[in-house]
Amino acid sequence: MKTVDLNSDLGESFGAYTIGNDEEVLQYISSANIACGFHAGDYNVLMKTVQKAAELGVSIGAHPGFPDLAGFGRRDMHMSKQEIFNLVVYQIGAIQAAARVAGTHVHHVKPHGALYNLASKDEMVATAIAEAVHAVDPKLILFGLAESELVRAGGKVGLKVAQEVFADRTYQPDGTLTPRSHANAMIHDADLAVERVLRMVTDGKVQTVNGEDIFIQADTICVHGDEGEALEFVRKLREKLEENKVAIQAFEAVDQP
Amino acid sequence: MKTVDLNSDLGESFGAYTIGNDEEVLQYISSANIACGFHAGDYNVLMKTVQKAAELGVSIGAHPGFPDLAGFGRRDMHMSKQEIFNLVVYQIGAIQAAARVAGTHVHHVKPHGALYNLASKDEMVATAIAEAVHAVDPKLILFGLAESELVRAGGKVGLKVAQEVFADRTYQPDGTLTPRSHANAMIHDADLAVERVLRMVTDGKVQTVNGEDIFIQADTICVHGDEGEALEFVRKLREKLEENKVAIQAFEAVDQP
Amino acid sequence: MKTVDLNSDLGESFGAYTIGNDEEVLQYISSANIACGFHAGDYNVLMKTVQKAAELGVSIGAHPGFPDLAGFGRRDMHMSKQEIFNLVVYQIGAIQAAARVAGTHVHHVKPHGALYNLASKDEMVATAIAEAVHAVDPKLILFGLAESELVRAGGKVGLKVAQEVFADRTYQPDGTLTPRSHANAMIHDADLAVERVLRMVTDGKVQTVNGEDIFIQADTICVHGDEGEALEFVRKLREKLEENKVAIQAFEAVDQP
Amino acid sequence: MKTVDLNSDLGESFGAYTIGNDEEVLQYISSANIACGFHAGDYNVLMKTVQKAAELGVSIGAHPGFPDLAGFGRRDMHMSKQEIFNLVVYQIGAIQAAARVAGTHVHHVKPHGALYNLASKDEMVATAIAEAVHAVDPKLILFGLAESELVRAGGKVGLKVAQEVFADRTYQPDGTLTPRSHANAMIHDADLAVERVLRMVTDGKVQTVNGEDIFIQADTICVHGDEGEALEFVRKLREKLEENKVAIQAFEAVDQP
Repeated sequence: MKTVDLNSDLGESFGAYTIGNDEEVLQYISSANIACGFHAGDYNVLMKTVQKAAELGVSIGAHPGFPDLAGFGRRDMHMSKQEIFNLVVYQIGAIQAAARVAGTHVHHVKPHGALYNLASKDEMVATAIAEAVHAVDPKLILFGLAESELVRAGGKVGLKVAQEVFADRTYQPDGTLTPRSHANAMIHDADLAVERVLRMVTDGKVQTVNGEDIFIQADTICVHGDEGEALEFVRKLREKLEENKVAIQAFEAVDQP
Repeated sequence: MKTVDLNSDLGESFGAYTIGNDEEVLQYISSANIACGFHAGDYNVLMKTVQKAAELGVSIGAHPGFPDLAGFGRRDMHMSKQEIFNLVVYQIGAIQAAARVAGTHVHHVKPHGALYNLASKDEMVATAIAEAVHAVDPKLILFGLAESELVRAGGKVGLKVAQEVFADRTYQPDGTLTPRSHANAMIHDADLAVERVLRMVTDGKVQTVNGEDIFIQADTICVHGDEGEALEFVRKLREKLEENKVAIQAFEAVDQP
Repeated sequence: MKTVDLNSDLGESFGAYTIGNDEEVLQYISSANIACGFHAGDYNVLMKTVQKAAELGVSIGAHPGFPDLAGFGRRDMHMSKQEIFNLVVYQIGAIQAAARVAGTHVHHVKPHGALYNLASKDEMVATAIAEAVHAVDPKLILFGLAESELVRAGGKVGLKVAQEVFADRTYQPDGTLTPRSHANAMIHDADLAVERVLRMVTDGKVQTVNGEDIFIQADTICVHGDEGEALEFVRKLREKLEENKVAIQAFEAVDQP
Repeated sequence: MKTVDLNSDLGESFGAYTIGNDEEVLQYISSANIACGFHAGDYNVLMKTVQKAAELGVSIGAHPGFPDLAGFGRRDMHMSKQEIFNLVVYQIGAIQAAARVAGTHVHHVKPHGALYNLASKDEMVATAIAEAVHAVDPKLILFGLAESELVRAGGKVGLKVAQEVFADRTYQPDGTLTPRSHANAMIHDADLAVERVLRMVTDGKVQTVNGEDIFIQADTICVHGDEGEALEFVRKLREKLEENKVAIQAFEAVDQP
């Protein structure tokens, strides 16, 4: 039986500020990328989110970002390789301790926002992240945009890598995402989006904006849960995948002591 | 041969701001309490300080504090037990990852500033810290003010505890430190301070402000290195201890895999 | 014709985080207390909120708080009189510049959260705030809990003071609010709350928890708009006040050049 | 008699962290650019620095920077024109209130670090800053790198502009500073630096790296005081200027009510 992972970004609330409806989203996903207190989240939200994910058997991932709460980690920050390495190490460590307290362990790492985007195309940033993950724990799985520099860097340092695809985005002939600035970047029809994901998962193919098919490896699918519609879409996607004998489960869960 | 630990607070610089002269202090101490980015320090300073301590064979300690850079962690913050637990877990995790990257491990935990002072007399705070340390790693050693609530709480949860004494402070008949607001709280004569420490270490005794001797357990001595004079004092103390056949070494270093 | 002021705390969003529905609340109130970027808000939210209030003719107030975004300014912070003075000056200045850019001026100052509560009973804190407000601009109106230290301090330094009452809280015989820890602290019946406010405004009386009437000066009524119900209550209160010939308008608006 | 302004960046300490020796530098300069709590400084340091500058008759300037304490405002941040406008307005307002409390007023605005550098060559950033300064108070003087976009933008919106030169930097034939990455960017010989400044001030000329003379308008000279040598240089420069009948005084001080 085929399997695929559904991942979502969680733990993004901060103090009195709430973002997302984590408790509901956790019902539908197999992997949670949990903010580590730099671009979002705090030590209380982190602990609570880790504990809930652990209770529901959802795989726990570190979701490190730039130290920019005001910009929600969506703004590029110019940092040296060593600084990026350090900030990823720090954030993974913080969530590892929370996971240990919750009786579980961290399973994967997916960078957030501007750090994710930079790591997709900038080899230095990608390598800094991959080396940091490997240095902290070589058994951690690295999540990166399919076909990105991050995926390549992860492979090079010897990490297991999960290639991530997006249900609501179109693809270029070279396998990259169509930039959001283009008119045809987004897929707004939920049924079409579900069909496309199903095809990526079962056939390893996606139709690009040119109309031709390309190969794509869909290890994990990024879904959102911060709006009513988004959650509705996740339910539909999950249903359709299961109808087609695709099981939702975390990417190659590694047994750890 | 008798041994005693000399500990100092390090890693307190932040971005462009420098506090302390860590490289020099590391030459003289056996245990470094390294700021974890909440009351002082940042992920870059943390990594660098952990690496230097590791190179010099100085035991690495987490030095968690309140999230209050502007107040340097010296202001009381009113937090629930769960919040204190969470913030200690988070900070230990961050430095554990840095230690792992540096090829070593975290050896002890000593709370900072207002958190240390609160933990000395407030059982709830003391218990929150002790439980957090134990939950992250029961092999960690907890440093607390000699005879304090923190020391008691550490013992209760099953942690190994190091009792800390101060060279430049006087003691009350009940074993507590004379509050700084009192005229006779501080010892300004370096030679007298050295003599007192030597006696605490070798005889387990200290003369209180009343003139009577009380028993005191001096597992680890807190020294400072942020001023020229302070460093001079540490050198003198070290020399005197060694003359008297007291070896300077980290408190019951535990071998970890 | 009688008049009363309806005030509400606004501009509390931060970066990607939203709190409150300011645009709607602004339709119903006469005074906006706008967060200044310390306990909530940021320089973008501040500017936008000031501009919207200005467009709708709602009086603009500085809403300074402790520098504690993580705690939303609800935690006591131990500061010297000079520090409190400085932080109030800073925050008023920031919003004054925003108001100038929006073609208007700041009309009043109401401290937030823990700073408001401390200022109600701690003379030092109250005086620090009052002196800061006066030093920046003696024409500013100070909002404080009716019968509080803050109101007294404002009067002493020569500021015009607006006494604030709460629709959803009960009062003690000595005119103070019943602490929230008491069972009868809150009024949950909206109709009763409206009746009480009306009586405070028109007769200057409120029934205390003992059943006896006391005098109360209700210059300004604090209302909330962050939940559907809260907004509904404001509409009802406004309607009832207008039915009873009480006009809603900012407290003694002072013409400034 | 010729005059020139000596300006320096001050008020950069933060909480327990100290940068610079402001009290001494204030003896030698005519204009202080005071950090406003975003890239450096805090509300306490700001107030103290404003008061000291006021006492010594040194002109007070706002020194707004990016909100990046960890990077000391030296990292580019990608912001919209509106955001830059807002952050400059906010910071000027904060220091204006402090100046009012100190019985004086803000005289000029000089952006800091990455914001200054961006404003030198990016018209959008330059215009955002100039418009913000003008909107808060059209009598404020804008300090910008000589011949920069900031100077042009200031002129366009109708502000009085002071052109700033650097004693320790070399110039390109087009009047721009030689980038620091070039070997000949810096002038290390103090006597030569003094001679060059004197010539810029008295003759309006500077020799570029090509050996040819170009015209340069030196309204204000940036000096540093954070190291022993730097302060020594300021003393020497001041002496030499006075020997040559150049008076040190703030740029076109405008009398304000």
